[in-house]
Amino acid sequence: MPPYVHRVHYYETDRMGVTHHSNYVRMMEEARVDFMEQLGWPYARMEELGVLSPVTAVNLKYIAPTTFDDRIEIHVGVKSFDGVKLVITYTMTKLCDPPQIVLTGESEHCFLTPERRFVRVKRDLPEFYALLVGLAEES
Amino acid sequence: MPPYVHRVHYYETDRMGVTHHSNYVRMMEEARVDFMEQLGWPYARMEELGVLSPVTAVNLKYIAPTTFDDRIEIHVGVKSFDGVKLVITYTMTKLCDPPQIVLTGESEHCFLTPERRFVRVKRDLPEFYALLVGLAEES
Amino acid sequence: MPPYVHRVHYYETDRMGVTHHSNYVRMMEEARVDFMEQLGWPYARMEELGVLSPVTAVNLKYIAPTTFDDRIEIHVGVKSFDGVKLVITYTMTKLCDPPQIVLTGESEHCFLTPERRFVRVKRDLPEFYALLVGLAEES
Amino acid sequence: MPPYVHRVHYYETDRMGVTHHSNYVRMMEEARVDFMEQLGWPYARMEELGVLSPVTAVNLKYIAPTTFDDRIEIHVGVKSFDGVKLVITYTMTKLCDPPQIVLTGESEHCFLTPERRFVRVKRDLPEFYALLVGLAEES
Repeated sequence: MPPYVHRVHYYETDRMGVTHHSNYVRMMEEARVDFMEQLGWPYARMEELGVLSPVTAVNLKYIAPTTFDDRIEIHVGVKSFDGVKLVITYTMTKLCDPPQIVLTGESEHCFLTPERRFVRVKRDLPEFYALLVGLAEES
Repeated sequence: MPPYVHRVHYYETDRMGVTHHSNYVRMMEEARVDFMEQLGWPYARMEELGVLSPVTAVNLKYIAPTTFDDRIEIHVGVKSFDGVKLVITYTMTKLCDPPQIVLTGESEHCFLTPERRFVRVKRDLPEFYALLVGLAEES
Repeated sequence: MPPYVHRVHYYETDRMGVTHHSNYVRMMEEARVDFMEQLGWPYARMEELGVLSPVTAVNLKYIAPTTFDDRIEIHVGVKSFDGVKLVITYTMTKLCDPPQIVLTGESEHCFLTPERRFVRVKRDLPEFYALLVGLAEES
Repeated sequence: MPPYVHRVHYYETDRMGVTHHSNYVRMMEEARVDFMEQLGWPYARMEELGVLSPVTAVNLKYIAPTTFDDRIEIHVGVKSFDGVKLVITYTMTKLCDPPQIVLTGESEHCFLTPERRFVRVKRDLPEFYALLVGLAEES
């Protein structure tokens, strides 16, 4: 699966001269949206099915700074899925010579109905369940 | 009416060392929310009444830069209201010695139902209509 | 010149369900950066030459809303340049069928040294001057 | 020490109707800035001393959503400091009746010179060192 590439915008930098650390959480979302789309489960489809997937936790390790105009390649993977809690991993690499890892991160998600009750993913979305479990096993 | 004060956050600066210009549009929203609340018409009340007031135009003149930790006093006024189109004005002053005007701006709004049809403000919200027209006349 | 395309991110939407109006100012910056790069005058080159080009004014007219995942094509042009003040125009079109204009805007810029004195563009950057004047005449 | 209070802005919400999860990282920064100021070590003083304190890691657990106009009280503490790595904790409580914990988080920081070399905090900033170690022991 081709990785997502984010090019750092001027408005994402701060007066330390680097990309503000909060923006990487947004890049993780961008890459996750792209990942779900490539898997055939775009957010739009989830929303039509009445499934919300809020973020329940994030953690990020900042390894090296980036700045305006840097291109960041984001590799996304499924770390684990137990039918309730999904953990997604991110590795961000700055596209320079040689490429440099700038961040590793994880996000944790659950699946809710619009009434904020848990979706029974295995029963109600069996294909989606099998896909995620399969990806987690590969990782 | 006491003005709204915004203190510039670190994440609002950019690598030129100053507050990124896009953030002033957000400060205008903050000050407008405060203004409506002080007028007795907070957003929450508008939303309960089923009235949306999207922004239909903004214009900003940037007079001087600000940066992290600066305190910006924002004076809000009603420039005009014809029952359909509301024009709000903003003057932002950096609280230093002597105070310095850093921005002037305007935003234009209309009033819509959730189905995105125009609300007849004069007929359906007569008190709100009178308030805005009165403020426009004073200005 | 191919237009810049911005795809609306989830984090750019607000609870009215649409792209928050402040984000279009950021899209204008993204498109301007791309435009300058395509002209052969990327920001990085300007910064190396010690030239800052702060935004001195913006104005935006919001014509129709957009939301998550919409693709917005942004056409950028030079409206005027008198050697001191540059006015850039933006037309944003949602890529749907048929395409729909969602925003028109302008930004105004000057050119400063790091000490915040005006750059004499015609004298010090004659090629850049000729390029911008030429683009303004075409428009 | 009085806690920092953040009031959720409209532009911080997303189309799920709640505060976008990336914004809590920014609230953590706001609260940290306030905390350092209350301790007598505001960012401005650190910057004058030539000390940068980049974020090297963050982790957040999202416990309950918030939305526009909610007031969030943020309690900040020092979890640990070994002279190189500082870990700060955050507990965010929505001010409603009864108050509700909405987020717990941590951020990790180091201290660098402008040339991005480690500051020897114990030797070069002994009062600051003692203060942080003392706060960590209390916690």
